[in-house]
Amino acid sequence: MASKIKKIGVLTSGGDSPGMNAAIRSVVRTCAYLKIECVGIYRGYQGMIEGDFKTFDARSVNNIINKGGTILKSARCEEFRTKEGRKKAHDQLVKEGIDAFVVIGGNGSFTGALMFNDEYGFPVMGIPGTIDNDILGSSYTLGFDTAINTVVDAIDKIRDTASSHNRLFFVEVMGRDVGHIALNAGVGAGAEEILIPEQNLGLERLLESLKRSKASGKSSSIVIVAEGDKTGKNVFELKEYVEEHLPIYDVRVSVLGHMQRGGNPTCFDRVLASRMGVKAVESLLEGKSNQMVGIRDTKMVLTPLAEAIKAHTEIDEELIRVSDIMTT
Amino acid sequence: MASKIKKIGVLTSGGDSPGMNAAIRSVVRTCAYLKIECVGIYRGYQGMIEGDFKTFDARSVNNIINKGGTILKSARCEEFRTKEGRKKAHDQLVKEGIDAFVVIGGNGSFTGALMFNDEYGFPVMGIPGTIDNDILGSSYTLGFDTAINTVVDAIDKIRDTASSHNRLFFVEVMGRDVGHIALNAGVGAGAEEILIPEQNLGLERLLESLKRSKASGKSSSIVIVAEGDKTGKNVFELKEYVEEHLPIYDVRVSVLGHMQRGGNPTCFDRVLASRMGVKAVESLLEGKSNQMVGIRDTKMVLTPLAEAIKAHTEIDEELIRVSDIMTT
Amino acid sequence: MASKIKKIGVLTSGGDSPGMNAAIRSVVRTCAYLKIECVGIYRGYQGMIEGDFKTFDARSVNNIINKGGTILKSARCEEFRTKEGRKKAHDQLVKEGIDAFVVIGGNGSFTGALMFNDEYGFPVMGIPGTIDNDILGSSYTLGFDTAINTVVDAIDKIRDTASSHNRLFFVEVMGRDVGHIALNAGVGAGAEEILIPEQNLGLERLLESLKRSKASGKSSSIVIVAEGDKTGKNVFELKEYVEEHLPIYDVRVSVLGHMQRGGNPTCFDRVLASRMGVKAVESLLEGKSNQMVGIRDTKMVLTPLAEAIKAHTEIDEELIRVSDIMTT
Amino acid sequence: MASKIKKIGVLTSGGDSPGMNAAIRSVVRTCAYLKIECVGIYRGYQGMIEGDFKTFDARSVNNIINKGGTILKSARCEEFRTKEGRKKAHDQLVKEGIDAFVVIGGNGSFTGALMFNDEYGFPVMGIPGTIDNDILGSSYTLGFDTAINTVVDAIDKIRDTASSHNRLFFVEVMGRDVGHIALNAGVGAGAEEILIPEQNLGLERLLESLKRSKASGKSSSIVIVAEGDKTGKNVFELKEYVEEHLPIYDVRVSVLGHMQRGGNPTCFDRVLASRMGVKAVESLLEGKSNQMVGIRDTKMVLTPLAEAIKAHTEIDEELIRVSDIMTT
Repeated sequence: MASKIKKIGVLTSGGDSPGMNAAIRSVVRTCAYLKIECVGIYRGYQGMIEGDFKTFDARSVNNIINKGGTILKSARCEEFRTKEGRKKAHDQLVKEGIDAFVVIGGNGSFTGALMFNDEYGFPVMGIPGTIDNDILGSSYTLGFDTAINTVVDAIDKIRDTASSHNRLFFVEVMGRDVGHIALNAGVGAGAEEILIPEQNLGLERLLESLKRSKASGKSSSIVIVAEGDKTGKNVFELKEYVEEHLPIYDVRVSVLGHMQRGGNPTCFDRVLASRMGVKAVESLLEGKSNQMVGIRDTKMVLTPLAEAIKAHTEIDEELIRVSDIMTT
Repeated sequence: MASKIKKIGVLTSGGDSPGMNAAIRSVVRTCAYLKIECVGIYRGYQGMIEGDFKTFDARSVNNIINKGGTILKSARCEEFRTKEGRKKAHDQLVKEGIDAFVVIGGNGSFTGALMFNDEYGFPVMGIPGTIDNDILGSSYTLGFDTAINTVVDAIDKIRDTASSHNRLFFVEVMGRDVGHIALNAGVGAGAEEILIPEQNLGLERLLESLKRSKASGKSSSIVIVAEGDKTGKNVFELKEYVEEHLPIYDVRVSVLGHMQRGGNPTCFDRVLASRMGVKAVESLLEGKSNQMVGIRDTKMVLTPLAEAIKAHTEIDEELIRVSDIMTT
Repeated sequence: MASKIKKIGVLTSGGDSPGMNAAIRSVVRTCAYLKIECVGIYRGYQGMIEGDFKTFDARSVNNIINKGGTILKSARCEEFRTKEGRKKAHDQLVKEGIDAFVVIGGNGSFTGALMFNDEYGFPVMGIPGTIDNDILGSSYTLGFDTAINTVVDAIDKIRDTASSHNRLFFVEVMGRDVGHIALNAGVGAGAEEILIPEQNLGLERLLESLKRSKASGKSSSIVIVAEGDKTGKNVFELKEYVEEHLPIYDVRVSVLGHMQRGGNPTCFDRVLASRMGVKAVESLLEGKSNQMVGIRDTKMVLTPLAEAIKAHTEIDEELIRVSDIMTT
Repeated sequence: MASKIKKIGVLTSGGDSPGMNAAIRSVVRTCAYLKIECVGIYRGYQGMIEGDFKTFDARSVNNIINKGGTILKSARCEEFRTKEGRKKAHDQLVKEGIDAFVVIGGNGSFTGALMFNDEYGFPVMGIPGTIDNDILGSSYTLGFDTAINTVVDAIDKIRDTASSHNRLFFVEVMGRDVGHIALNAGVGAGAEEILIPEQNLGLERLLESLKRSKASGKSSSIVIVAEGDKTGKNVFELKEYVEEHLPIYDVRVSVLGHMQRGGNPTCFDRVLASRMGVKAVESLLEGKSNQMVGIRDTKMVLTPLAEAIKAHTEIDEELIRVSDIMTT
């Protein structure tokens, strides 16, 4: 490959997710393998604007493949949304001699990359790093697999105590706009009911489902609630509602919170990250830009960033059906 | 041993804790080994009152040593606090031919056992099953070791995301009256500050500590807060307070909640449970009663229940000092 | 669906794998949901021959979704390979009134099912349960995801001690005929070299790779070796060979062994099992037979059993390349 | 404290164990807290001889409390057993201005420290870091708690597959001279029989025990074998022996190996390490030397190194008895 690209920057941007370090490692090692220079850009676009750079060689990323979080740090950056911000960033990249960058993040990060490319023709490549799995163009985003395992492990623990006391638990999981974590972890944890942003089943159905569950002889019930569920009630309000309308249950609430973003990545996320990093660097060297690396079945694919950021992913209707059947 | 005891009941009572199943298994297997009959009493004292009994042999407790929760279920029981309730329970035990019982639980459960023995001269033995480690007469209660590992694992995950974003986290852990979980898990997780019910360090100290931490170059901070901490503020109020008085921090909150009660018991808790069950049954057969089995260093010891329930345990001052030094 | 099938049997056969219990649960619950009777067949085809059956309702499979192994037990069965054996099995099924069965297992189990169908026209459906991921017609087999995480967790631990002593480890993982576990877990664990049955890279390359690794400043090296690797040497012989030809290394060996088959299934395997069970039962009721349920990308698909058992899966060449690049 | 000690070295020596990093961190932070300089000595006594030193401040040990292995590396060092070797080491320490050192390791490491002190009057303090728990003067050594949990987790996985196939497993665990890991993990994992170096129960008893287990209706059996067990047979030979003399069993073998040394330390080991580091540094500043820090019940204690290295610890007879009862 006789590419004009001699030095590639890599950054993580937006909310962190497990596997980001493995993706950074992959970008850095691929550059080393292909004799391209690699520069780590700290704190996302903010660090790009401030020139917070560090040269990385293959050894700089030893022992990080199995670590959660991101050694490059991450941040949301208002300034990069402005023309002036992006100008500063471009100046810094030029000064450092960086010819292209790989951004690991979500929709917001990709939008920024697109605008940047639009203004400066600067080659950019995206890797979808978010636990929400809400990006078109990849069946799995980096961190999703780890996150659903973290949720399932937590719910397995909650079920121990729920069963011992014949209790009903409302467990809030991440997902403001999408219910992928809730749905997958809910099926994996054997939840009684799963409330997601994509559907409003109504509170009546919830009560019916809980009554049926109790009648069927189950000793406990777990209801998974995505942050952005459409009942109009959060988990605390749901608890009150059920206690009022279905007083047969001793109800408890658990909000899993930020632990869902952390943790050592699963093997799936580590492998996915390793593959995505290789694909991102090689694609840049092949002259491609404005693309996002994704996985379809077991193959790496590219999707234009413009398309990736366009719309939300659909919830898997078949899995909703499986979920319903499993609660028989 | 020529004991008059031919049939022993076993129950779990109060909040559940990891290792209760291992203790049930141990009581049952010790009875089988010593050719004593064993009866499982379901749902704590409530099941005793209702005669919710089941004969257990050695095989009844296969494959439960590594399971959280309690197969006997647990419950808090108001009725057992009344003379009438205890009368009903005694009638049921007599009817079933049970000569003695082992109760796995906390202070409330032991108080009930004592009153019962007081009225009927019925042999009772206690095993301290609670994650709070707040029972005099045992250096460790059943479930404490598992709970602190659960907390530390969760905080390790939270630290990943905290470090990636340079954030401050307030993490609420269990402990309404005692800070053992907070203090041990806080030291184990490398927390910046630990707020416990036994001490009121004041909010000033907290701000000082956080400022010093920031100045020292730490990329993130975790503050552990026991439920019953004495600042007068819960984690959400602490967040607001710090955001107002120390605006250099991006602050988040996490309430770990009920997952702390569940999970597969650690090896320590499984071994402890196995030893306690043997000691409890053998002590009953030796004619002892009104005692609690405990561990001191590596030895099993007995403590009168009357003493065990008397007072709370002391917080470990040396460990508080270690905690302070570690945050240097 | 007006199907003639009123009673479905389910069995696990061959080597066990994590997720089998979740698949059993799914088959049972789907039957209950669709008002079909369901019968558990114990110990694979052996239990079928012996009529080792038990009626299962929705509650029979409570609390098994998160358990490794198989509550139905598994076995390899010579007798089912004979015409007489299959005759006995058919008699037992007829006697019990079973109209169709779902077999969860690998190639051997599917071959048996096909022969059985061929002789008796009995409706059969397969679910690929094996940690080896070596079945055509499904991108992932049940248990593979759990197994690679088990391997990666073990190697993460081994790396701790390897790094502390600057050692080289040969780690043997399962895979007599295929290297999917070795390759995926090797990439996930950041292995230096991965030896698989599908490739013979030769011992020279191994020495070169280890020399390069040492020279590049790595503090330790892990080489993953699938059981069926083609160097002609097992891990103990590889140790000797390297000690003789590359005396710069302190070499150790670890054989991970049977723990790779066990463990609580990951969320991925639980969800996959749940989906496969639904698809298997519904396909039978739609009149289909001799098919295996699989996953392609995120969709359930059917593949004729005759095709599924025909050939081994290909190793992922792109992932081999990623593996090479990552060891830079 | 007006101590003459102004600069303290810290090293890890011998086999590594989980919690060593937490102990290093504690020594370093305690020095920083007390305004003493601290120097990390790499690769044990070998690095001391070679002057492989690095100044450590409080931030040098960020984010290591939860990591297995040792950032200081460890090694066994023949040269330090010679007078010349120790002379070189002393010269290096003097040159660096180090006034005292803390060595984290086992008996061999303590013997070296004692000889060194004997020749140069150099203040030394020991912290018992070994998974074997075989050091007099501390109820628990650093890493033991993590190791038994690693073993129990592995056996839980093996039991899944053992139960599914009604198999007998011989599982070899670490312990050449002592059976503490085998005994504790064996009880924790519900093993059928535990073979340790301290006892020779004889092969007859093993066969009897296995027969009884089979007769009692258990679906699988796990026998734990410490490396140094006294039957005169290793796990592979035991397998053959049982297959020959008790052909009712399908037997398998698993050697857990080096993964037992690694892994993130448990909360217990992290807290123990933190406490031990504080105690070691403070004791040196109080003018003490030639002591080992240990834990008795919940208190820190000192034991003369000369005593600590004298003899092996006793196996816990009561726990052996518990183990026997549990296999009923």
